[in-house]
Amino acid sequence: MADEENAYSYTTRATQHLTLDNLDDSGFKMWRGESLPELTLAYECWGELSDAADNAIMIFCGLSPSAHAASSAQDTSPGWWEYMIGPGKAIDTDRFFVVCANSLGGCYGSTGPSSINPETGQKYGGDFPDVTVEDIASAGYYLMRELGVEHLHAAVGSSMGGMASIAYALQYPGEIDYLVSISAATQALPLTIALRSLQREIIRSDPNWKRGQYGDDNRPLIGMSLARKLGLVSYRAADEWNSKFDRSRISPEKRSDQRFSHEFEIENYLEYNAQKFVTSFDPNSYLYLSRAMDWFDISEHGDSIATGMSKLDVTRALVVGVTTDILFPLRQQREVAKVMRDTGTDVEYVEIDSVNGHDAFLIDDTHFTPVVKKFLDESLD
Amino acid sequence: MADEENAYSYTTRATQHLTLDNLDDSGFKMWRGESLPELTLAYECWGELSDAADNAIMIFCGLSPSAHAASSAQDTSPGWWEYMIGPGKAIDTDRFFVVCANSLGGCYGSTGPSSINPETGQKYGGDFPDVTVEDIASAGYYLMRELGVEHLHAAVGSSMGGMASIAYALQYPGEIDYLVSISAATQALPLTIALRSLQREIIRSDPNWKRGQYGDDNRPLIGMSLARKLGLVSYRAADEWNSKFDRSRISPEKRSDQRFSHEFEIENYLEYNAQKFVTSFDPNSYLYLSRAMDWFDISEHGDSIATGMSKLDVTRALVVGVTTDILFPLRQQREVAKVMRDTGTDVEYVEIDSVNGHDAFLIDDTHFTPVVKKFLDESLD
Repeated sequence: MADEENAYSYTTRATQHLTLDNLDDSGFKMWRGESLPELTLAYECWGELSDAADNAIMIFCGLSPSAHAASSAQDTSPGWWEYMIGPGKAIDTDRFFVVCANSLGGCYGSTGPSSINPETGQKYGGDFPDVTVEDIASAGYYLMRELGVEHLHAAVGSSMGGMASIAYALQYPGEIDYLVSISAATQALPLTIALRSLQREIIRSDPNWKRGQYGDDNRPLIGMSLARKLGLVSYRAADEWNSKFDRSRISPEKRSDQRFSHEFEIENYLEYNAQKFVTSFDPNSYLYLSRAMDWFDISEHGDSIATGMSKLDVTRALVVGVTTDILFPLRQQREVAKVMRDTGTDVEYVEIDSVNGHDAFLIDDTHFTPVVKKFLDESLD
Repeated sequence: MADEENAYSYTTRATQHLTLDNLDDSGFKMWRGESLPELTLAYECWGELSDAADNAIMIFCGLSPSAHAASSAQDTSPGWWEYMIGPGKAIDTDRFFVVCANSLGGCYGSTGPSSINPETGQKYGGDFPDVTVEDIASAGYYLMRELGVEHLHAAVGSSMGGMASIAYALQYPGEIDYLVSISAATQALPLTIALRSLQREIIRSDPNWKRGQYGDDNRPLIGMSLARKLGLVSYRAADEWNSKFDRSRISPEKRSDQRFSHEFEIENYLEYNAQKFVTSFDPNSYLYLSRAMDWFDISEHGDSIATGMSKLDVTRALVVGVTTDILFPLRQQREVAKVMRDTGTDVEYVEIDSVNGHDAFLIDDTHFTPVVKKFLDESLD
């Protein structure tokens, strides 16, 4: 199993690994031209596939989650989208066969930069080929076929996962009935490119990065920690932090007396969350997946965003945006919905007024559950 | 002159240096308790002080500018606020005696971490005492008295300088007639603390930082460059970048073929501006002045923001905010104006609809000139 040599691999007892058998002799062909000789995907699933194999939902994740989107009998620990997926929930596992894979390029059991390259016997590291959102979507496509699913009832994704849902639909027209894109975009714009580029540069500037060829005991942890903090800042909204932290100070006995050391609770919060992250996430995976988002541009599927999006062939799409999202702002959500409508797709567009910024889909059960539930319930009418 | 030993000192032929003579024996007492044995300020001035010494305007800067706010006969190169200050301009040097000093703690000729500590003969570096916005304001106060000004007609400041204008007015009640606060705040809030803390941590994580005791030939330039990029991202607005850069690519012959190297023009823009900055700005000054903004909190001048602000004793105040400012958002500008009004100050409050974000005051002549001009013209009625 690929993850045995992997220092990060956050997998659960419910995680399964499948090395794709349905590829060409040359392996997995990637969107930007390179190939992977072998592709293993770590995934979890919930519910039962119907005899007609017509009730499958694929969940595409954001940059950092594992395949463990929800608990199950095999592993009862809460998943990263626990409120959304389960029996009787919005993504109802009594009715749907739900699959979530760790993204290609990730570090939680799927083939990525921390995996061993079978051609060299060494970790890929910085020699892993360029990963795009299209590749993440294609990997999901091949996985579903191996699981006996030729056609998806729905693809559901948030953030990078929303892009991947759309990329799946554009690459395999007619193979998804219902599409859910939450806090995604038709293409990355300069502010988000700048924020992600800076995160990558912070990691690359860590002397331990060594162009991606670092050892498990000598990872660029400082760069990874600082990059994660910048990510966290961009995922949340100012008002949420005002009410949560205001100007609260760290208690003096917990503070260093060094000048410039952390003094405010907000600094402590970022430190705590960054430290939790760096022990479990591969900095190279961060670089590859972050760059994949910069590259995403629906106009690459045609001559323009509109001709690209016109390849969409779904029964209905749900597009969701969050008022306080600074990373994928409402303006981009409106554009996704508009260009889908303009090119002939039946779209339900919802703006959620949440304080939680770009991360709202992970947190704001109250606002998100009814929106997703209604859309998927109606998909069965 | 203090700046002779200073590697950064961006001064012009118009810059004068004055070592304050009007301090106690113990030197310059700072807001958080430490003292500076000696305080030199680099400043420039424009116009003539009236015989009654009643036409002086002090300009307080943001984090990075020098004293060279405008050109003059002594130095005709454009200053950082060239459109605003000059004969017949909004801050009219035909009528006002205008002074701008490099901030205490800065690196353009005023005493700061890159200055020599007279008690040790070595650079202060990371041993420079804690700098607050109140100290920057006080230094301005002592400078103006040395220049023969007991009472300011106006104090004008933007960003950190707006905080300094307010701090001057609160520390020396009744000594300013007209107060202009542009894109400032009553206190720093968690999002801005987080963004600044992260910039500081990026600098401190550079192995060359060495707790501030780096040599001129071995400065933490990588950390400074990355921190500056993060600053730049926070100073501007998404829509401005969308129209300026969109997804334009750097031309292939100018790109490195290393994976993750810069590919988009927005990345190039940040790189260019950061490189310009790191060659001229002291990373320690960045740390000290950045922290000063986190600490700023008008409630330290009383029991609350309201009791603090109630010490204000000015004839009239102008408070200006910019619609696209994400760092000091409109909500904070409204709060500055409201708390001033609630505590008895006559306030003119203006929201400027500019695409230029927090940096609008530096760029958006068209919107800013009439607002400042009207306020100062009326101050002479």
